[in-house]
Amino acid sequence: MRNPVRVGIVGGTGYTGVELLRLLYSHPSVEVVSITSRAEKGIRVDALFPNLRGHVDLVFSTPEEARLDRCDAVFFATPHGVAMESAPGLLEAGVRVLDLSADFRLKDAAQWEHWYRHAHICPRVLDAAVYGLPEHRREQIRDARLVAVPGCYPTAIQLGFIPLVEAGLVHLDSLIASAASGVSGAGRQASIDNLLTECSDSIKAYAVPGHRHLPEIEQELSSVAGEGVSLTFVPHLAPMNRGIHATLFARLKRSGTDLQALFESRYAAEPAVDVMPAGSHPQTRSVRGANMCRLAVHQPQGRETVVVLSAIDNLVKGAAGQAVQAFNIMFGFEESVGLGHWALLP
Amino acid sequence: MRNPVRVGIVGGTGYTGVELLRLLYSHPSVEVVSITSRAEKGIRVDALFPNLRGHVDLVFSTPEEARLDRCDAVFFATPHGVAMESAPGLLEAGVRVLDLSADFRLKDAAQWEHWYRHAHICPRVLDAAVYGLPEHRREQIRDARLVAVPGCYPTAIQLGFIPLVEAGLVHLDSLIASAASGVSGAGRQASIDNLLTECSDSIKAYAVPGHRHLPEIEQELSSVAGEGVSLTFVPHLAPMNRGIHATLFARLKRSGTDLQALFESRYAAEPAVDVMPAGSHPQTRSVRGANMCRLAVHQPQGRETVVVLSAIDNLVKGAAGQAVQAFNIMFGFEESVGLGHWALLP
Amino acid sequence: MRNPVRVGIVGGTGYTGVELLRLLYSHPSVEVVSITSRAEKGIRVDALFPNLRGHVDLVFSTPEEARLDRCDAVFFATPHGVAMESAPGLLEAGVRVLDLSADFRLKDAAQWEHWYRHAHICPRVLDAAVYGLPEHRREQIRDARLVAVPGCYPTAIQLGFIPLVEAGLVHLDSLIASAASGVSGAGRQASIDNLLTECSDSIKAYAVPGHRHLPEIEQELSSVAGEGVSLTFVPHLAPMNRGIHATLFARLKRSGTDLQALFESRYAAEPAVDVMPAGSHPQTRSVRGANMCRLAVHQPQGRETVVVLSAIDNLVKGAAGQAVQAFNIMFGFEESVGLGHWALLP
Amino acid sequence: MRNPVRVGIVGGTGYTGVELLRLLYSHPSVEVVSITSRAEKGIRVDALFPNLRGHVDLVFSTPEEARLDRCDAVFFATPHGVAMESAPGLLEAGVRVLDLSADFRLKDAAQWEHWYRHAHICPRVLDAAVYGLPEHRREQIRDARLVAVPGCYPTAIQLGFIPLVEAGLVHLDSLIASAASGVSGAGRQASIDNLLTECSDSIKAYAVPGHRHLPEIEQELSSVAGEGVSLTFVPHLAPMNRGIHATLFARLKRSGTDLQALFESRYAAEPAVDVMPAGSHPQTRSVRGANMCRLAVHQPQGRETVVVLSAIDNLVKGAAGQAVQAFNIMFGFEESVGLGHWALLP
Repeated sequence: MRNPVRVGIVGGTGYTGVELLRLLYSHPSVEVVSITSRAEKGIRVDALFPNLRGHVDLVFSTPEEARLDRCDAVFFATPHGVAMESAPGLLEAGVRVLDLSADFRLKDAAQWEHWYRHAHICPRVLDAAVYGLPEHRREQIRDARLVAVPGCYPTAIQLGFIPLVEAGLVHLDSLIASAASGVSGAGRQASIDNLLTECSDSIKAYAVPGHRHLPEIEQELSSVAGEGVSLTFVPHLAPMNRGIHATLFARLKRSGTDLQALFESRYAAEPAVDVMPAGSHPQTRSVRGANMCRLAVHQPQGRETVVVLSAIDNLVKGAAGQAVQAFNIMFGFEESVGLGHWALLP
Repeated sequence: MRNPVRVGIVGGTGYTGVELLRLLYSHPSVEVVSITSRAEKGIRVDALFPNLRGHVDLVFSTPEEARLDRCDAVFFATPHGVAMESAPGLLEAGVRVLDLSADFRLKDAAQWEHWYRHAHICPRVLDAAVYGLPEHRREQIRDARLVAVPGCYPTAIQLGFIPLVEAGLVHLDSLIASAASGVSGAGRQASIDNLLTECSDSIKAYAVPGHRHLPEIEQELSSVAGEGVSLTFVPHLAPMNRGIHATLFARLKRSGTDLQALFESRYAAEPAVDVMPAGSHPQTRSVRGANMCRLAVHQPQGRETVVVLSAIDNLVKGAAGQAVQAFNIMFGFEESVGLGHWALLP
Repeated sequence: MRNPVRVGIVGGTGYTGVELLRLLYSHPSVEVVSITSRAEKGIRVDALFPNLRGHVDLVFSTPEEARLDRCDAVFFATPHGVAMESAPGLLEAGVRVLDLSADFRLKDAAQWEHWYRHAHICPRVLDAAVYGLPEHRREQIRDARLVAVPGCYPTAIQLGFIPLVEAGLVHLDSLIASAASGVSGAGRQASIDNLLTECSDSIKAYAVPGHRHLPEIEQELSSVAGEGVSLTFVPHLAPMNRGIHATLFARLKRSGTDLQALFESRYAAEPAVDVMPAGSHPQTRSVRGANMCRLAVHQPQGRETVVVLSAIDNLVKGAAGQAVQAFNIMFGFEESVGLGHWALLP
Repeated sequence: MRNPVRVGIVGGTGYTGVELLRLLYSHPSVEVVSITSRAEKGIRVDALFPNLRGHVDLVFSTPEEARLDRCDAVFFATPHGVAMESAPGLLEAGVRVLDLSADFRLKDAAQWEHWYRHAHICPRVLDAAVYGLPEHRREQIRDARLVAVPGCYPTAIQLGFIPLVEAGLVHLDSLIASAASGVSGAGRQASIDNLLTECSDSIKAYAVPGHRHLPEIEQELSSVAGEGVSLTFVPHLAPMNRGIHATLFARLKRSGTDLQALFESRYAAEPAVDVMPAGSHPQTRSVRGANMCRLAVHQPQGRETVVVLSAIDNLVKGAAGQAVQAFNIMFGFEESVGLGHWALLP
C-alpha cells in the first residue's frame, strides 16, 4: 500500500484552513503533517476551532518549524501576497503547491498588480500556474506543479456560464452576474463591517465599481469562448454563514436550443456539479458543507434572456473542497475522495 | 380644528396590518376606528402582536360589525381577491379605498386573470383605480377614489429605473432586476417554506419562470417610457425579516450622461427617496421601519451597463408606508405626516 | 463478512428523519431499506431535502408497502402516539425498535397520559422499553428489544447533572435547568410560531408552567440518585437552526470536591461526551452536526451554587445520533460507527 | 415657552450613541448641540450610521471643540474609565451628567477597582452619584447632578426581582439569573468573537466565573432588601441584534401569595414596565426599539421555585432609553417624553 501523501497547510487560522482540515482528515491517503500560523504559534488548533476537539491534535507552528519543503503538497490558505513569497522555493524543492489565494490566478502580472495594488514578485511563475477549475482545466491540473484554486464567486459564476459560452449561444459583450455571498467569504478577522450587528437582518451590494474576482472570471470565460468576454459583476453580502448564490443573465443569440439538455449533457460526468431538474431553484443550504455546485437554467417567458442559478458553499466548492478536488487529480486519486460529506440541513 | 379622518383596516392579522397601525397611530389627524379579521373576531390585536401592548386597544371585528361604510378611508391589507369583493360597495358609499393587495394594480383584467388565476369580478372599477406610486402618479393620486398601492418589489424596481427610462437613456428591451426580499414578504401564515429552519442561513431565487409582480412593473415603466418595456425579473428570498434590495441592470444607449446628477435631480423634491452619494451601496437595514427608498447609481468600469441599487423596507415604503403616503396626498395632508420614523439600526 | 443490518425508518419527512439518513448512510454495516410517509407516498426523499440529491435514491412508501416486519431494526421518527400503534407488532415479529418519540420514555403510563393528553394503548410494553441514554443505561440497551431514545433537552440536562447526582453532591429538591433550543426542535411542519419572521432576532421562554420533557428528566435523575429529584425546567426558543444549550444550577451540599476532576473522571470513557477544560463555555455550533455533548462545570466565586453548561445538537446527540449510538450498542458494533461527522463551523 | 435643554453626547460612535440620537431627536424640548468622537472627528454622523441620513446633520467633534461645559446635560456613552475623567469638571461647571458607562454605578470604589481592573480616579464623586433605575430610585434621580445609568442585564434582572425582594417573599442567599443578550451588547468595535460567522446560528454562556454586572445587581437588590443578597448570574450570547431576556429563579419562603397581583400592583404606575397577563412569555422582539420592560411571573407546578421572565431592549430600556427616562425626571419633563416609540415587529 502506497504511503500517505504528506501535506502542509499554510495559514490555518481562517475558515478555509479549518475546512481543509475537515476534508483532508477524511481523506484515506493524506497525512496532514503541519499547519502554520505565525500569530498563533504554539496554540492548539482546536483551541481556536472548538469543533475540532477530539479530532485534531495539531499545534500551529511557524513556517520554518513546519519544514514545508519536506511535504509532498502544500496548501496556502493565506491572504494574497503570501503564497508568492514561498511558492517558488517550495516548487524548487519539488513540493506541489495549491494556492487558495489570488496570487497565481491571473496570467497577466500587470493586471494582477492593478487589481491587488501590490507588486507581483514572481511573475515568471505565473506561466507555470494552472487555474484550478477541474470542470474547465482537468487535464492541465493533472500535471500541474502549482494550482491557483479559483475563488468562490468565480467558481459559481463560471460553472453557470460555461455551457452557454462553450456552445456559442449567448452574446459575450453583456454577461451579467448578480451574486450573494455568506459572511465567511470575508474571512475570520476582526472587523466592524462583519459584526453580526452590522450585517445580520440586512443585505447590501458591495464593490460595484469593481471586485477583484472580476478579472479572473473574464480571463477564464474568454479562454472558454476563444474571444473576449465582458461581464458586469455585482456581489452582495447576505446575512448567512456560508454560501454563494449567483444569478446569471445572458442574452441568447438564437432560440431553439434545449438549454436543460445542454447543461445536463455538459456536466453529466462531473462529480461536483448537479444540474437540477427543469424549473428548479437551488438553495445555498443544499450545498452547505458539500463539494457541490447545484445549477438550474431558466428562460423566463421564453424571452431572449437566459437565467442561470448557481449555488455553492464558498468554503468548500468555492475554496477548500475545490482545492482537495484538484489535489486528487494531481495525485492520481479518485476525484471525490475525501469529499463525500453531505450538506447539513437544516 | 378639522375632525380626524376616520379609517378602517381590513385584514389586520398580517404584517402589513400591524405596520399600518404603527404608522396611522402616529398620524395626528387619523382615528383608526376598526380593524377586521373574520378568523380573529373578538381577539385583542395586541394578543397577536405583543409590540402593540399599551398602544392599541382595538379588538378584531368582522367587516359587518366594523361598519366600514361609515369610514372616510379604508385600507385593504388582504390577500388578492378580497378587496375586489368589497371595494365597489365602499366606493359607492363615498369611502375612499387604498388597496394594498394586487386587485387593482393591472389595467388589463385579462392579464390580471392570467397572473392571479382568479376571475376579476369588477373590471370596470379598474379604470378608476390609480396606481399609487407617488413618485410617478402624485397628481392622479390626489383625486383618486381608489388607489392600488404598489407591491414591494415593484416599488424598489420602478424607483430605480424611472430616471433612466424617463430620460430615454437605456435600451428598453433588456432591463434586468435581480432583487432579494426579507421573509415578511411572504406574509404571516402557517407554511413550511418560511420556517426559520427552512430559510435561515441560506438564500435562493424563486419564481424565475414568472412572478406576479412582473406585469405591474412592465405596465408602469411602459407608461413612463411611452413605449413597451421588457424586464427580466428574478426575485430571491434572503434570510432576514424585512427589506427589499433590488439590483438593476440596463444597457446605456449612449455615454456621457452624469447619472448621479440625473438621479439627484429627478428625486430632489421627493420626501421618500434618498439618492445616496456617488459610490454608495445602500443596506436594507438603513431603511428598516422607515418610509424611504435609498438609491445608488453606478457605471462599473465605465462600461455600457448601468447598475442601480435600490433598498426599501418591504412593509413600509413597499406597503404600509406607501399607503399612508398616498393617503396623505389624497386627504391633503403634508405628505410625510405619520411617516417620520427613523430606521432602527442595529 | 456479516450481512448489513436491514433498517427501516418510519416518519421520514421531519428533520430527525433526514439526519437518520445522513448518519445511517455513512454506517458501513447498515442498509436502509425503506423510509415511510403516508403523506409523501411515492415522492423521492431528495425532492423534500435537496441536500440528499446524489446520495439517496429512496422514495417514501407507506408503512404497509415498506414491509417493516422484514427489517432487523426500525427507527420511529414520528409524533407521539404513532410508535405505540406499530411497535408491539414489530416486536412480535422479532424486529428491534428504536423510538425517537416520547411513547415509551415514561415508565408510568398514567403520568404519560397526563403529560401527553392521549391514552397509552400498550402500557405493558413500557416495562420492556429501555430509556436509551447510553451514558446511564448502556448495559440495558445492549439487550433491549425496544429503546426509547431520549429527547433533546433531557439528554443535555441529564448529562450535565449525572456526575453531581451520582456523587451525592447536590441538594436534589432544587435543581434548575434553563435551556435554549434551536427552532428545528419544533419539527418541520407548517406553523406561524416558527416562521423566520416570528422567531428570528428574538428569544423567549416557553412552556414555563410545564414542558413534556420534565417528567422523563426527573424519572431518570431519580433513578441515578436512588431518591426523588425535583427540577425546575425553563425551555427557551433561540433564533438558530440547531442546538440545545442547557445552563444547570444546583446547590452543593458540601464544599471541597474537585468538580472538574469529577466530571472528567465520570466521562473519561464516553465517546459522545467531551468535558472541556476548566473555565470553558461550550458553544452549540461546536457540536453542529456532531454526535457529541460538550460540558463545562463552574463554581462562580466559589459560592455554593454549581453551574454546568451543556451543549448538544438537538438533531444528533439529541435525536438521530443518539439513536444510532444505541443501535450500535444493540447490534454489537463499535459505538461510534457512523457517528464520526465533525461539527460544521462556521 | 421654555428654551430647549442643550444636550451633548460623548462617545457617539457606538450603538448607544446612535440610539440616544434617535430618542433625543424625537424629544420636543431637547436640542442636541454636539456629539463627540476623537477617532471620527470631522466625519458626519450619518456616514457611520446610514439610518440617520436625512435626520441628523451633526458632525463628530472633539470634546474640546464641543464646549460641553456650556451644555445643560451631557450623556456619556463611552467605555468605562472615560466618564470619570470628565465628569468632575462638568459637574463643577453646573452641567448635569448621565453616565451610561459603569464608572459611577458601584458605591464601593475598591469593589469597582476589583471588577474593572482600573483605578477609580474620583471616588468622592461616587457618593453624589445616583444609580439611575427610575423604578427604584425615582426621587433621588429628580435632584441628582450625576446619574449612573444601569447596565442592560442589571435593569432586566432588578426589575424582575424587585417585587419579590421588596415583599420579603424569597430566600436571598440563592437568587439565580440566567440571561441572554443580543450581540449589540458587545458594542460596535472590531472583534473576531462578534463576527456574524462566529456568533450566528449558535448560543453560548460566557463570563460564568464572574461578570462585571454582578456587583451592581447585588448592591441594588441588597438596598431593596435591607440586607445582603447573593446572586448567581450566568449571561449568554444569543444570535440576535438587540434584546436582553432574563430568566430568574428564586425559592419562596412561604406559599399563598398571589404573585401576579403582587407584580401588577408594584408596577401599576410605571410607564416603562409591563406586567403581562398570567401565563405569558415575553419575547425580546416585543420590546425591540421600545423603552419597555415586559415581565411575566410563573410558579411552575405550584412548587417552591418562582420563575420571572423579563425582556428589554438592551439599547433602550437597558441604556439610551433609560438614560432619557432619567433625564426627563431630572429636568421635570413628563417621564415618557421622547420615549413613545413602538417596538418594531417583525
